[in-house]
Amino acid sequence: MKRFSKNVVTLLIAATTLTGTHLMAQNTTTNELKVPTLEDLIPGGETYRYTENLYGLQWWGDQCIKPEIDSLFAINPKNGRETLLTTRVKVNEVLEAAQLGKLSHFYNVQTPWPGKPQLLLALRGEYIVYNWETAEVVSRKAIEKGAANVDYNTESGHIAYTIKNNLYVDDKKITNEPEGIVCGQSVHRNEFGIMKGTFWSPKGTMLAFYRMNESMVTPYPLVDITQRIAVLDRVRYPMAGMLSHEVRVGIYNTATGDTLYLDAGDPKNRYFTNISWAPDEKSLFLIELNRDQNHAKLCQYDAQTGKLMGVLLEERHEKYVEPQHPIQFLPWDDTKFIYQSQRDGYNHLYLYDLTKLAGRQAQELDTEAVWEFVKKVGNGKIGKDAAGMQLTSGPWLVQSILGFNTQKKEVIIAATKESPLQSNIYKVRIKDGKLTPIDNGQGVHNARLSASGTYVIDNWSSPQMPRSIDILSIANGKETTHLLTAEDPFKGLVMPTVETGTLKAADGETDLHWRMLKPADFDPAKKYPVIVYVYGGPHAQMITANWMYAARGWDLYMANKGYIMFTLDNRGSANRGLEFENCTFRRLGVEEGKDQVKGIEYLKSLPYVDAQRIGVHGWSFGGHMTTALMLRYPEIFKVGVAGGPVIDWKYYEVMYGERYMDTPQDNPEGYKQCDLTQYAGNLKGHLLIIHDDHDDTCVPQHTLSFIKACVDARTYPDLFIYPCHKHNVLGRDRVHLHEKITRYFEDYL
Amino acid sequence: MKRFSKNVVTLLIAATTLTGTHLMAQNTTTNELKVPTLEDLIPGGETYRYTENLYGLQWWGDQCIKPEIDSLFAINPKNGRETLLTTRVKVNEVLEAAQLGKLSHFYNVQTPWPGKPQLLLALRGEYIVYNWETAEVVSRKAIEKGAANVDYNTESGHIAYTIKNNLYVDDKKITNEPEGIVCGQSVHRNEFGIMKGTFWSPKGTMLAFYRMNESMVTPYPLVDITQRIAVLDRVRYPMAGMLSHEVRVGIYNTATGDTLYLDAGDPKNRYFTNISWAPDEKSLFLIELNRDQNHAKLCQYDAQTGKLMGVLLEERHEKYVEPQHPIQFLPWDDTKFIYQSQRDGYNHLYLYDLTKLAGRQAQELDTEAVWEFVKKVGNGKIGKDAAGMQLTSGPWLVQSILGFNTQKKEVIIAATKESPLQSNIYKVRIKDGKLTPIDNGQGVHNARLSASGTYVIDNWSSPQMPRSIDILSIANGKETTHLLTAEDPFKGLVMPTVETGTLKAADGETDLHWRMLKPADFDPAKKYPVIVYVYGGPHAQMITANWMYAARGWDLYMANKGYIMFTLDNRGSANRGLEFENCTFRRLGVEEGKDQVKGIEYLKSLPYVDAQRIGVHGWSFGGHMTTALMLRYPEIFKVGVAGGPVIDWKYYEVMYGERYMDTPQDNPEGYKQCDLTQYAGNLKGHLLIIHDDHDDTCVPQHTLSFIKACVDARTYPDLFIYPCHKHNVLGRDRVHLHEKITRYFEDYL
Repeated sequence: MKRFSKNVVTLLIAATTLTGTHLMAQNTTTNELKVPTLEDLIPGGETYRYTENLYGLQWWGDQCIKPEIDSLFAINPKNGRETLLTTRVKVNEVLEAAQLGKLSHFYNVQTPWPGKPQLLLALRGEYIVYNWETAEVVSRKAIEKGAANVDYNTESGHIAYTIKNNLYVDDKKITNEPEGIVCGQSVHRNEFGIMKGTFWSPKGTMLAFYRMNESMVTPYPLVDITQRIAVLDRVRYPMAGMLSHEVRVGIYNTATGDTLYLDAGDPKNRYFTNISWAPDEKSLFLIELNRDQNHAKLCQYDAQTGKLMGVLLEERHEKYVEPQHPIQFLPWDDTKFIYQSQRDGYNHLYLYDLTKLAGRQAQELDTEAVWEFVKKVGNGKIGKDAAGMQLTSGPWLVQSILGFNTQKKEVIIAATKESPLQSNIYKVRIKDGKLTPIDNGQGVHNARLSASGTYVIDNWSSPQMPRSIDILSIANGKETTHLLTAEDPFKGLVMPTVETGTLKAADGETDLHWRMLKPADFDPAKKYPVIVYVYGGPHAQMITANWMYAARGWDLYMANKGYIMFTLDNRGSANRGLEFENCTFRRLGVEEGKDQVKGIEYLKSLPYVDAQRIGVHGWSFGGHMTTALMLRYPEIFKVGVAGGPVIDWKYYEVMYGERYMDTPQDNPEGYKQCDLTQYAGNLKGHLLIIHDDHDDTCVPQHTLSFIKACVDARTYPDLFIYPCHKHNVLGRDRVHLHEKITRYFEDYL
Repeated sequence: MKRFSKNVVTLLIAATTLTGTHLMAQNTTTNELKVPTLEDLIPGGETYRYTENLYGLQWWGDQCIKPEIDSLFAINPKNGRETLLTTRVKVNEVLEAAQLGKLSHFYNVQTPWPGKPQLLLALRGEYIVYNWETAEVVSRKAIEKGAANVDYNTESGHIAYTIKNNLYVDDKKITNEPEGIVCGQSVHRNEFGIMKGTFWSPKGTMLAFYRMNESMVTPYPLVDITQRIAVLDRVRYPMAGMLSHEVRVGIYNTATGDTLYLDAGDPKNRYFTNISWAPDEKSLFLIELNRDQNHAKLCQYDAQTGKLMGVLLEERHEKYVEPQHPIQFLPWDDTKFIYQSQRDGYNHLYLYDLTKLAGRQAQELDTEAVWEFVKKVGNGKIGKDAAGMQLTSGPWLVQSILGFNTQKKEVIIAATKESPLQSNIYKVRIKDGKLTPIDNGQGVHNARLSASGTYVIDNWSSPQMPRSIDILSIANGKETTHLLTAEDPFKGLVMPTVETGTLKAADGETDLHWRMLKPADFDPAKKYPVIVYVYGGPHAQMITANWMYAARGWDLYMANKGYIMFTLDNRGSANRGLEFENCTFRRLGVEEGKDQVKGIEYLKSLPYVDAQRIGVHGWSFGGHMTTALMLRYPEIFKVGVAGGPVIDWKYYEVMYGERYMDTPQDNPEGYKQCDLTQYAGNLKGHLLIIHDDHDDTCVPQHTLSFIKACVDARTYPDLFIYPCHKHNVLGRDRVHLHEKITRYFEDYL
């Protein structure tokens, strides 16, 4: 899921959303049931209960490919009929004869060529194309040792990758930069939807790539204690208001072997985001932002000369604009593209006519004038005088474009139209924006569209459904094939009950969603301690209509121990639109905290809540929230565990930090108000701060400066450090982490 | 006291020994008494109860100088009569007229010229000689800004100092070395008694100095979080078995301005210690050691040529030799010097005739043959065939030479002859070694000898006496003047009782000393929890015959809270001789732990001890002991707080580490046995590890690698970090530290 991608949410969230067990006040007798351990409930645990899944499902044209360990099947989506394509024994015979190694299963193979019976395999540093009909190796391409960020182009067969800080294509070194200049990798700390650093042109003959000069960025010193004498890891980490890196975009031409850089002017204090290619490969599109992040421009560059051809669109906002989606051209019309914007308050699709926008220069543009071109035109065509039209609208948001149906001229999307907790599949008719739901209208759907856009593999869950995988027809939304109904992963285990509801935010108007877990043997006549699990920051949502409303493993564990577990998605969190998010601008954590107090007021109104025993836990932004709540509301919260917290936004990085806080120079009051070291003296309850010593997202300086502030103020937080972990404690140690957190609440709450 | 000097004990001990209050089972009714707080009891506390003292007492020839804030007095030691020498008003009139600033008190002035009525003052970076009779500034000498390690020679008036890594004399830069080569500062990490890097010749015309090339030493990365983006402090820290620094000794000639370096051969893996000058300034003496520290040589170098003149003495030991005292010539005979050695098992004085030793070459020497020259000769002269004689002997040790009485031909020493817990003053007749006690035979005496050696300022304490300052006559040991009887610093406070005793070590033979504090309202019918405070390493002794047997402030505090506080000086600790110390060789912490268990057995034999509630706390070596005891004896210790612990000796430095452990290459079994990460899985009780983030003595790698080992082993220590502190939490934050430690025991013991 999006918010767990390292690349999407830089402030990672502590937990993987768990998909759990029996739902809703079940009349369980726990007699025969086992009480689950952290090993059962926490990812990385030895007996972790994964929800059943089918790995590696994908499309081969309009045929669904189902990999298994020993066999590879094709499924006819119309009727679910399975055909055996090949076996591992057969493939390995061929591979071993060619001394290419062995496939240990089919889960990682790809079938990117609709017309051809070919697999793409990566084995021992070689990319191999294998024809399963002729049982032959069609081609092979070796990459250098130490290669990373591998980007294989299925059209041309060219392969781009990085070694250390330089970019390679096939066996050629494309850049030759010294340390401090990084090529072919993601830039701007993965903000603005940037997840990679190489971008093949549609035919795979040209490669656009990022070049980031960070030699001027002050490095943060992280220490690696696993060496015989500890060694330094220097992470070039631009902090809010400080000198930042400079990014350029290069284009490598595989035919000529030449590289040019876009002639974009001085890259200082600018962001180059959302790279995409024109279908004809002649031009490249970028969305450029100023450092203040309140002015975005969609720019078109000539791919042969690197010259700016025009500024097609501009967006401004007094708080911030945040482009996260490259433009996408309609497969059947190279002059029309879809642009996504939150301009009307929710992320929606806009269709533009390139011919009407091309060639504009920034200085000629009046932003509002351009936006006036955007009209929703009923007759299905972009109006004569209009440059574009709004395709979708309403108080809900488009989450992603899954693809297109060329024949029907539709774009297939995921959106929150049913509920902000859900994600459902819709088709949108391009000619008039007519929107038709495809899926069952429940829960959260992760979908994969077939090549022609006629079928979708729909992997979904709902509060009552751990996981279901079906193939749906886009034409009528009917299920044509059912592939999986996952078994309850927590079958046989004692499970708490899960409830959700809404309450009013501190503004008195906005509905906020909450989730509550109660012990299986809940007795309304008793008093229960409560632990609030909080994240609260932008780009994330804790309560969704996933299985068990996305209750986390640790929440289940603690509810089983007799705690009421409560979570509230405050204003500032994801999927509720722009204003819901940006009301926190320039003072992150303040409004969010007020909303959390509303949650506490609700809890206190419940007769079975012990108001004297309220705890709070969160990680990253949630660590900030936890610490802030402990300090701003010491009379409410008795115990807190804050993981990887932001303590002072001036120690956070430029891209995320300045978007929401501006710079310390521009917003000194806001930075001071949100600097938690200021409140160190308020600490009354028990607060455990946990930080990872290799955290290069939220550097250890946050926690250590807070500890110092508390020592100065003579207050007594507790501290724990996980050595050799980054922003999150992952893998096997995640169980240790949750045992540690559990013990703290058990000792003090 | 010696063991608290940064320069003497590299593994610093957590606490300053407190000098406390009413002693022994007093029949206190606590009704009218106040319970002291940590602020009262911990150095750095806002209301810390210092023991009364007279600051700046010193000799001016044989007159005792007593500085006060506004006046400077001379005391006639014969009768205690005080004479006013000058006043601050008067001195400041002169200083201000010369624009030299102002004296704010007399406590830091010096009177180093017996014949002359002159003060040496340091003000605003100038060294000023002031004549109090003529009320004139006699001379002034400015030093550069940023000067450190200032060494003013009172004979010649030359002044040596360092700026960054280079050495200056007067206004001249003597060395011009790049970063990584340090001149004029202490070397070998302050081991071997090395406390400084400059050594003036007797007449102050020549300056011997250390030059340490540490450019080849891998730096340890410490992080300073107080900067806007955390910055690195690189400390060149040679770890056991790794490449170490290389030291040379230079001589700067103030007359010629020339510098030469001793021609001592390849400095790799060698130690150059205990520099001293010949009285005629023509030669320089060093005690050189091999890296294995089992072979020491007393070497004489020609100060004009730098050539080795001879190897005068050698010492070998299968475990280690540890020279800590430069040779000292008799003031009345330039051919005789005193050499200190633990050769017979205890540190004693040996008198040598330079003329009989001079010119020997190392390769000609048979060590044992030289030692055979050493004979205790009854007739008061070094025998005809002997090079030297042993001056003192017996199962006790000489702690320091206070000076000489030239007229009587006596050396005045501090020694443990009365008891290993005491330090008393003796005179030793040079001609036959006859030893005569000077002081009252009680407690611990810190003495300062007058110029002629006829009087001593005796600043002493005993279990019953917070502090007394007297002037004694060396001739007959009689008190001629009484200067101070300090008031009980804890008057009016509730105080526990203090008891001491001995028990047998784990070897079944050796007597070990213990100290026990009981609450003031101790009731033998009750059961009390116990906290063991432990250090346990070489060069330190926790139980001495100081005021209240050196009970620490925190011990007093915890005893008041109802804990029995227990400390035992195990084998390996100081002042008990060589074998007592070196039985721990190559496996530090193991025998020491066995002895501590003997202490626990004793405690368990007491009806009022709650054997289920035993805790342990210590810092540095005591942090190692605490951690080791928690892990090796998990069934005994329920709670531990380990501060700045050594966890694995391979992370400790070369000089101290290899002396006791050899190298990891030579002693792999020993290192493994003493590596506490091996036992991380044994942790059962509650163990809090505290480390300072700027600890350049015991680097944070120790604690972090232990935490990692515990996470790997799924055990659950607690952790706290004090930012911006070095090996000890000092100053105001020391109160915070002890509150933190207290809370941990209160929560879990």
